[in-house]
Amino acid sequence: MALQLGDFVAALGGELHGDATLAIEGLAPLESAGPSHLSFLSNPRYQPQLQASQAGCVIVAPAMRDAALARGACIVADDPYVYFARSTQLWKRAHARPPGPAIHPSAVIDPEAVLGEDVRIGPHCVVERGARIGAGTVLKARVHVAEDCSIGARCVLHPGVVIGADGFGFAPSPQGFVKIEQLGAVRIADDVEIGANTCIDRGALADTVVEEGVKIDNLVQIGHNCRIGRHTVISGCTGIAGSATIGAHCMIGGAAMILGHLTIADRVSISAGSFVARSIGKPGLYTGIFPIDDNASWEKNAATLKQLHTLRERLKALEKKL
Amino acid sequence: MALQLGDFVAALGGELHGDATLAIEGLAPLESAGPSHLSFLSNPRYQPQLQASQAGCVIVAPAMRDAALARGACIVADDPYVYFARSTQLWKRAHARPPGPAIHPSAVIDPEAVLGEDVRIGPHCVVERGARIGAGTVLKARVHVAEDCSIGARCVLHPGVVIGADGFGFAPSPQGFVKIEQLGAVRIADDVEIGANTCIDRGALADTVVEEGVKIDNLVQIGHNCRIGRHTVISGCTGIAGSATIGAHCMIGGAAMILGHLTIADRVSISAGSFVARSIGKPGLYTGIFPIDDNASWEKNAATLKQLHTLRERLKALEKKL
Amino acid sequence: MALQLGDFVAALGGELHGDATLAIEGLAPLESAGPSHLSFLSNPRYQPQLQASQAGCVIVAPAMRDAALARGACIVADDPYVYFARSTQLWKRAHARPPGPAIHPSAVIDPEAVLGEDVRIGPHCVVERGARIGAGTVLKARVHVAEDCSIGARCVLHPGVVIGADGFGFAPSPQGFVKIEQLGAVRIADDVEIGANTCIDRGALADTVVEEGVKIDNLVQIGHNCRIGRHTVISGCTGIAGSATIGAHCMIGGAAMILGHLTIADRVSISAGSFVARSIGKPGLYTGIFPIDDNASWEKNAATLKQLHTLRERLKALEKKL
Repeated sequence: MALQLGDFVAALGGELHGDATLAIEGLAPLESAGPSHLSFLSNPRYQPQLQASQAGCVIVAPAMRDAALARGACIVADDPYVYFARSTQLWKRAHARPPGPAIHPSAVIDPEAVLGEDVRIGPHCVVERGARIGAGTVLKARVHVAEDCSIGARCVLHPGVVIGADGFGFAPSPQGFVKIEQLGAVRIADDVEIGANTCIDRGALADTVVEEGVKIDNLVQIGHNCRIGRHTVISGCTGIAGSATIGAHCMIGGAAMILGHLTIADRVSISAGSFVARSIGKPGLYTGIFPIDDNASWEKNAATLKQLHTLRERLKALEKKL
Repeated sequence: MALQLGDFVAALGGELHGDATLAIEGLAPLESAGPSHLSFLSNPRYQPQLQASQAGCVIVAPAMRDAALARGACIVADDPYVYFARSTQLWKRAHARPPGPAIHPSAVIDPEAVLGEDVRIGPHCVVERGARIGAGTVLKARVHVAEDCSIGARCVLHPGVVIGADGFGFAPSPQGFVKIEQLGAVRIADDVEIGANTCIDRGALADTVVEEGVKIDNLVQIGHNCRIGRHTVISGCTGIAGSATIGAHCMIGGAAMILGHLTIADRVSISAGSFVARSIGKPGLYTGIFPIDDNASWEKNAATLKQLHTLRERLKALEKKL
Repeated sequence: MALQLGDFVAALGGELHGDATLAIEGLAPLESAGPSHLSFLSNPRYQPQLQASQAGCVIVAPAMRDAALARGACIVADDPYVYFARSTQLWKRAHARPPGPAIHPSAVIDPEAVLGEDVRIGPHCVVERGARIGAGTVLKARVHVAEDCSIGARCVLHPGVVIGADGFGFAPSPQGFVKIEQLGAVRIADDVEIGANTCIDRGALADTVVEEGVKIDNLVQIGHNCRIGRHTVISGCTGIAGSATIGAHCMIGGAAMILGHLTIADRVSISAGSFVARSIGKPGLYTGIFPIDDNASWEKNAATLKQLHTLRERLKALEKKL
């Protein structure tokens, strides 16, 4: 189905300056958009790109109205980035092909699992005994939801996700490790999205908990008994060890590693690639990354790093002398 | 099935001080346990929590007998943590629902695969030609065991595990990379547990080997021709590159990265997040992590780090002058 | 089928010195090869191992002809490593068991997907609407190719690979994050190999692109809108964040992390475990890894690292004084 500019405004609001009947053939960033594309300017920093853009129409904030009008058609919206996000949703709905069956016949759903209304479960998913899937939630394909785990409403779980595999717990004994059966489950609240091949382990005794609105990227590992606070975002390749408590509205960069049994306050941002070995009690941005360098320079600095403590002692001795 | 305190002692031994008919409704840590919970104290450090605990009964070591008796019911056992682990197993057995079919009809098992007694294979697993699965081993769901790979007895492979995908080997040529077919397999010994979405690649010429009792967490990558020694523990998100040899009884922390073609001795511990670029010949704890800091401090220190070698030279010059 | 030495030369060329009827029972490295094994010497550094090898025949470069002849049978080839790679392919073809069905009945292939000639699709794969799989490509098992994504010819996708899950994009709003539907797809060119459980996300507006000949290891994450240049190699556990552009002929070491929205030039090598936070414009080897140490030394040096900037200031002050 083709969309016209007016369809966006009719569905999403905003103030249209331009021809409502313009046919929109796609959404595109400012620099590659053409005369039949809808684009957006969310960051005033990119204003120079606005002027140069060939876009048929640009979504802008009220403060950019004049600048946008000087260029051509625009939709003025309070939050252009949210408006753009909703435009992608409108676009997707308008171009959706007829859906397949709500529950794919190859999915294996235990009769004792409980599915809410309008749940969609794709090919080769497995939903075990006692699991609960909330209304409107989508399990894309090859998703595993283990015994007694619960997923909230309107969640999206991408292919390969594993919810409720055993947490990693063993007691050492002279005869080798003795498995600690993981008797807890996983509870995921509403509006959570979980990326491909991500794993969230079931709790040892109590449950692992993911609160509402959390967004988790691909290939993330969340250990047993973690709690992830509402509206926290976790980027790809991140690992969170068991029994860590992450606050609400946190931003965890990609490939971060968070040790177990520690607490991160609300509104903490962790830079990608950082290793978090201690609790963090105050909001802010935290970082711990070895800066990349050409290999020869790195080798020299890394070698010196191993004497850093000695260097400090030598410096102290010099200071005393003077 | 409800369990009574006496059932634990009857099954697992230990010295019960308290009412054997007390109904146990769950296992719980000291701080959250209530009067119908069984709890445990494995580390004497947590003795203050023992006194404050509302647990119906606490598993303690002989040295803690008096302290525990002063509080209430207890089970005295030589190793309370192992006793607790076995209690979780007893609990799980007592509450198990009737099992489904041993081999789920959706699993794809090649007729030339060999399955031991009491093997359980869950939905959507794939076991290829020539693969062998030892007695009592469980493939949870969506597990892949490729051609000619063998899994020992009493192993547990969690959803999404891939055993025996091709190792990563290519010969560069002017026409692009030429694939080196991976002619080895993977051999996994008895009592190994492998976490969700973990991958162990088949060897190039010889086999990749995981020895008995090894425990591997989720999202771990083990390259071709590695050998992992018995009773070694590998936490989540860890990568071990090809042809690395890891000793027995090692502890590899989460998100560690171990380079290929190197050797780690027995009883080496690697801190989570460390990068191992050289062989380690002696037992001990090894670490290499950039300490996390607030971003502003990190920026200053990271910038200086790039001049570290120069700083050392300047210090040396000063020392000469004096 | 047993192979004789002469079969290798007949199929792959090279100059045979030795008995063409020698039965070859396997390929093996120099140190473990026996009298019925074919081995190879690709790096002149390993010449001492050549002399000691029990191999039935060794593939060597022209410069090694005399040294090899002094030991026994050899095949002289311009590039022994490529010759060895092709030998593994010959070996695999010769020992292949009869193939199963080209499309496994448990695979779920949308009728609107387009499959090239000689495509092989293993158990429990999912190929969605509008996806295209090029001629001769193999989807091993449990591979997911999402709507409208395209895979080139002669590719190999290992178990658990997810192509075209949604990129990670959300617009923050006072009511929580608003999903940005990912309207692009993934385009993978010819001769690409992708390791087990690796994920490549679909683009937000344009496509994510992997160019020809790229080789990707296991458990790699490639974010939306990335472009990976031809013949680049990406080792396991690596993460590449959204909108990164990686050049051609790059070598990305294992567990490297590359931030989004940056550009890596052609022929850049990144050491394993390095974090790339900035664009790299020149070919070369780049590294950023905290060197591992025994834990006690690391603790002292890491603590001092947090004062590094202060140390520099103190050094500067001393220099001024003198």
